[in-house]
Amino acid sequence: MMGPTGIIRPNDTLAAGRTLGREFFNTLEKLSATPPGVTRVAYGAGEVAAFKLAAEMAKTFRAEQRFDAAGNQYLILPGQDRSRTLLVGSHLDSVPHGGNFDGAAGVALGLALQASLAATNKAPLFDLATVCLRAEESCWFAHSYVGSRSALGRLDPEALEVKRSDSGKSLGEHMAALGFDPQRVREGGRLLEPEEIVAYIEPHIEQGPALVAAGVPLGLVTGIRGSFRFRHIEVLGEYAHSGATPRALRKDAGLAAARFVVALHEMWDDFAAAREDLTVTFGEIETDREAHGFSKVPGKVHLCLDVRSQSKGTLERAQKQVQEIALRIEAETQCTVLLGERSGSAPAPLSEPLQEVMLDAAQHVGLTTIHLPSGAGHDAATYAQAGIPAAMLFIRNENGSHNPHEAMDMADFDAALALLDAAICDPRIAELPRPPPL
Amino acid sequence: MMGPTGIIRPNDTLAAGRTLGREFFNTLEKLSATPPGVTRVAYGAGEVAAFKLAAEMAKTFRAEQRFDAAGNQYLILPGQDRSRTLLVGSHLDSVPHGGNFDGAAGVALGLALQASLAATNKAPLFDLATVCLRAEESCWFAHSYVGSRSALGRLDPEALEVKRSDSGKSLGEHMAALGFDPQRVREGGRLLEPEEIVAYIEPHIEQGPALVAAGVPLGLVTGIRGSFRFRHIEVLGEYAHSGATPRALRKDAGLAAARFVVALHEMWDDFAAAREDLTVTFGEIETDREAHGFSKVPGKVHLCLDVRSQSKGTLERAQKQVQEIALRIEAETQCTVLLGERSGSAPAPLSEPLQEVMLDAAQHVGLTTIHLPSGAGHDAATYAQAGIPAAMLFIRNENGSHNPHEAMDMADFDAALALLDAAICDPRIAELPRPPPL
Repeated sequence: MMGPTGIIRPNDTLAAGRTLGREFFNTLEKLSATPPGVTRVAYGAGEVAAFKLAAEMAKTFRAEQRFDAAGNQYLILPGQDRSRTLLVGSHLDSVPHGGNFDGAAGVALGLALQASLAATNKAPLFDLATVCLRAEESCWFAHSYVGSRSALGRLDPEALEVKRSDSGKSLGEHMAALGFDPQRVREGGRLLEPEEIVAYIEPHIEQGPALVAAGVPLGLVTGIRGSFRFRHIEVLGEYAHSGATPRALRKDAGLAAARFVVALHEMWDDFAAAREDLTVTFGEIETDREAHGFSKVPGKVHLCLDVRSQSKGTLERAQKQVQEIALRIEAETQCTVLLGERSGSAPAPLSEPLQEVMLDAAQHVGLTTIHLPSGAGHDAATYAQAGIPAAMLFIRNENGSHNPHEAMDMADFDAALALLDAAICDPRIAELPRPPPL
Repeated sequence: MMGPTGIIRPNDTLAAGRTLGREFFNTLEKLSATPPGVTRVAYGAGEVAAFKLAAEMAKTFRAEQRFDAAGNQYLILPGQDRSRTLLVGSHLDSVPHGGNFDGAAGVALGLALQASLAATNKAPLFDLATVCLRAEESCWFAHSYVGSRSALGRLDPEALEVKRSDSGKSLGEHMAALGFDPQRVREGGRLLEPEEIVAYIEPHIEQGPALVAAGVPLGLVTGIRGSFRFRHIEVLGEYAHSGATPRALRKDAGLAAARFVVALHEMWDDFAAAREDLTVTFGEIETDREAHGFSKVPGKVHLCLDVRSQSKGTLERAQKQVQEIALRIEAETQCTVLLGERSGSAPAPLSEPLQEVMLDAAQHVGLTTIHLPSGAGHDAATYAQAGIPAAMLFIRNENGSHNPHEAMDMADFDAALALLDAAICDPRIAELPRPPPL
């Protein structure tokens, strides 16, 4: 009998994993419910409970439990070759009042893979670790990827001094309070050396609508987009009477800002026409509430710009164009465009050979997938940047992430489990070329 | 000896008026100072004090004092023909923490004209009344032109029920508290019938920068722009992850709003090329602070649109185009543009023959003037709409209005006095054609 996605066979070898996945999500949601949604504070109660739940479930198949200095948890099913470890997992913290699946789906799939192997008495090619990472969400310590960076000895030591947004205690203090070793984290200490890691595979719900739009349950992620951000752009003109100020004497900051927004989307058109990966977003556009008015030409507009691409070169070219366009708008409008401080992140291309293994695995189990970039950042970027073959598998999600409405059809979870089960059995996984660390 | 503007002759016939003007502004500022700026609440202490000051100054030349039912004050210098009255004046209320000159300059010039005539024992052609109007600023009773509309029996009776923004008492209650007669105002009672009014001349500081830019002290106002306003436009799209949402799947309300702003300025280009009088202003542009974020495609933008013109036909054509452009933007962006409720006012063309009289007067006294529209509304619009020949004389002002920095060079005041003195002596003023009332 075929299941709804065409690959679900009751009583097959993945039955234990499917059952575990459902139990994990149900229990996890109860443990961390803060209606609306769930809250799993990094190094806080929700994350600790989630780590314990994962460990308890892993006990049923007698996985080994280890922690690194930062408190990342490794639940290890011994493999045929015990000298190297294949990591499957993600983070277990969430944003405040977020959804149950962001991060957790990666851990659930690691455990489900292990449960299925254990139930059928199969040993993986290498040690297979479900890795539960800490503190991925930047809302808690202002830094992203605290767990994965610590795991790889790549955490900026200054991050240890950052106070958690809700507690007033620093990251280092929170690590120590749970019995971990911030000093060792500061020194870059690692549980696993990069060369001991076969690969890092991070299943995750998609945070955009591409899979829903394409009508497929799973996506193979080509890379994690990097970004440049101007979060505090100010367009400055001059306040003036709306009815009494002739056009030639206006310095309309609202018009200048609107032209800047439109011009940057025309720039996006050009990049898209050249098939260069890019996104351009103005998330905030605001005249000054203290000074604006319906009968005043606005004198000041705040803008927030987020530009992302999988290509470092594209980001560099786009940033140069943004600066040129700002100058052009200044010349055309007599306003000033202050781009302000730039922040951002480097793109992280994911392992192409690992994508091939996963594509073949999908075909093997009869699944259609698409390739797509990840627009959001993920711990996989840290592993990729450290020169470890890294992959992500996106699972269809109707409602975006970081909100209580995150959704995952368990049939799509089952599809991901089948794909990953086939992928980790592929012997080519032993021979993945290692990209140079960034 | 020539004064700085080339027309000021010490000991000439206008000396008394120049002196009065300076005293009036100095005393008025002290009476109504609320640092920063001045506050003359309509039907409140500041306006009452200003009315008393004007009356006291008019006593020095034995002007007759009268009030209409709404409490507008007429300080009358008897003329050669006592059957008709020429009005010169403006309002004496101010916005909170406004400047000393908006409105007050019109009353000061009426009094200065009368003082000069009296000091030289000249009787004007007709009764010359300095009219002190009440409650012109819409900040107090939500309606503009309360005084002039009441004076002409044209106040919407509902306005009498509107509570003053600071007191919680209605306009009618405030009128009665000062001893005036709201019931008679409700019935449209008038002190002067329109046909008894020779003309209404309102000197006023310019509220825009056109005179400063042109380098001239005075401007002859061609008409008062009318408007249509959409104060609560909502552009609705869909919130989405900035990095994870492909372009084709976006409904970016920020981009749609920016395109709408730019498109309406292109529309303004077209009207300007056709020499049609128009202003287009988006005073407020705001993504939703409760929901926006730097990494989110914005799902909602609030806009505020103010379009003005001296021509009713231009306003009608522009409004039709705004609606068409909104539909086009909707089709192009997959967003919704809800224009919402429309408000506005009718344009008021000012008397061309009276502009000619004033232009000739300017030439007579050696002054250069320009013609310009009034972008802001003024009591003169009420008189024009009632079919009374109405004119405005703008006086140069560096700093806009409705703020503590309103400025007027007293040399420019003196120039206005000279121009008006010449104008009111022109016999053509007896024969002004009356436009049909609107």
